[in-house]
Amino acid sequence: MILVNGQPSDRVDALDRGLAYGDGVFRTVRTAAGAPLWWRDQYAKLACDCAALALGCPDEAVLRDEVGRVAGEGAALAKIILTRGAGMRGYAPPSGQTATRIVMGLPLPAHAHPESADGIAARWCTLRLARQPRLAGIKHLSRLENVLARAEWDDPAILEGILCDTDGMLIGGVMSNLLWVAQGILHTPDLSASGVAGVTRTRVLRAAPRLGLDTRIDRFPAAAILAAEEVMICNSILGVRPIVRLDHAHCPSAGWSARLNTALHEETD
Amino acid sequence: MILVNGQPSDRVDALDRGLAYGDGVFRTVRTAAGAPLWWRDQYAKLACDCAALALGCPDEAVLRDEVGRVAGEGAALAKIILTRGAGMRGYAPPSGQTATRIVMGLPLPAHAHPESADGIAARWCTLRLARQPRLAGIKHLSRLENVLARAEWDDPAILEGILCDTDGMLIGGVMSNLLWVAQGILHTPDLSASGVAGVTRTRVLRAAPRLGLDTRIDRFPAAAILAAEEVMICNSILGVRPIVRLDHAHCPSAGWSARLNTALHEETD
Repeated sequence: MILVNGQPSDRVDALDRGLAYGDGVFRTVRTAAGAPLWWRDQYAKLACDCAALALGCPDEAVLRDEVGRVAGEGAALAKIILTRGAGMRGYAPPSGQTATRIVMGLPLPAHAHPESADGIAARWCTLRLARQPRLAGIKHLSRLENVLARAEWDDPAILEGILCDTDGMLIGGVMSNLLWVAQGILHTPDLSASGVAGVTRTRVLRAAPRLGLDTRIDRFPAAAILAAEEVMICNSILGVRPIVRLDHAHCPSAGWSARLNTALHEETD
Repeated sequence: MILVNGQPSDRVDALDRGLAYGDGVFRTVRTAAGAPLWWRDQYAKLACDCAALALGCPDEAVLRDEVGRVAGEGAALAKIILTRGAGMRGYAPPSGQTATRIVMGLPLPAHAHPESADGIAARWCTLRLARQPRLAGIKHLSRLENVLARAEWDDPAILEGILCDTDGMLIGGVMSNLLWVAQGILHTPDLSASGVAGVTRTRVLRAAPRLGLDTRIDRFPAAAILAAEEVMICNSILGVRPIVRLDHAHCPSAGWSARLNTALHEETD
């Protein structure tokens, strides 16, 4: 089921600026019993991303209600797209326009089913992410870099690609954030110039001290993960998952992903 | 009038990847007497941009026919959007999918009317364009940088903003390419890491030798245009237009834009 501005529809305006210019933001949230999980963090991130693009964010209650409506049977995910709405040709953003809301229910992808293997296989991507501080961190709709990076492989056994920026520094996965534990410290790349700062990453960083882990957010070269006790990816669909194979290298596991997942779900929302 | 895959419609699929990820390309072409101008160059650029994204480009005859259908009375422009079509959630491009075609007729904007002033006012933008060789030159749909740059001003007297990349080197206008003549040479920025390589820029570079102008494409610092005889912008809607004011500075004119416009239109298509 898809709601466009609250009305059931599978169509959007052909003049929508989300289509014309990638002018909008999105979120994919897990749902349970017809309600979004981690909603406080999800909405806060959506509002923050909207503010960064001077896009009016819909009311929390309106979005939560629409997510509830699409989160029926078989829909374990809700995707929320907010765009700057329809506009005539030209980059100038129309003033005072309300965001167009597209809210859709989606099934859980196979790789996120509870019975799927915990450890995942990943690869290094060739594409380097551009450095753009004005867009970094935001989950916006201008995502061609992610599309090109994901197009680098079609082996279904490989779930994720790891990306560096044009300086060769680690950023994250195509659809996830990157974490690793080394010397008792949970590391994750700085995302002030590239990448998406996901809600699960935020929650993991908040939960880590309860597991006795210090955290470090910084710029790290690609080789930084090679000495880790455990390398992980995380997003709202997968939670935290260990990388057990990275191209031809086997990666160690130390149980951190299981502990972090438990800690994530213990946190009251 | 709007055609979606050849059918009159003002709606597109809410699952379209153009909307979800900015996964597609576009062109805006001038039309006259129901036919696109400079069509050979326009289609060649569209096919080139599609190839760069591994997107199947529709047949030339199909698109030319659709442009003709929307180029009725009052429509002096046709915008062609090609996307990777509808897809389920996830960045992986579906294989073997035909591009979705959205072709719309649009009126000429006021600033492109023949009676509007020739010389235009421009400003320097604060935003710096990211350097991404994989996307540079392509007129793709992931254009949030252009949206943010255009949002920097709302003075209707200013038509264009001039952009540098994150290294401070000149790239072009928000909606146009940048040209200048200095010491008998036509200069334009190198676009191998940022910017859109427009069809009018290509045609200008091809026409310049007929006016006795050598051409130079290179990386130039912002100050390079300050010593020019004439600074110009160009695109398919405006043709070539001199910048006569850049923020508070008055810029000289030397008649090059008029000569280049004449040369552009002399070229057989």
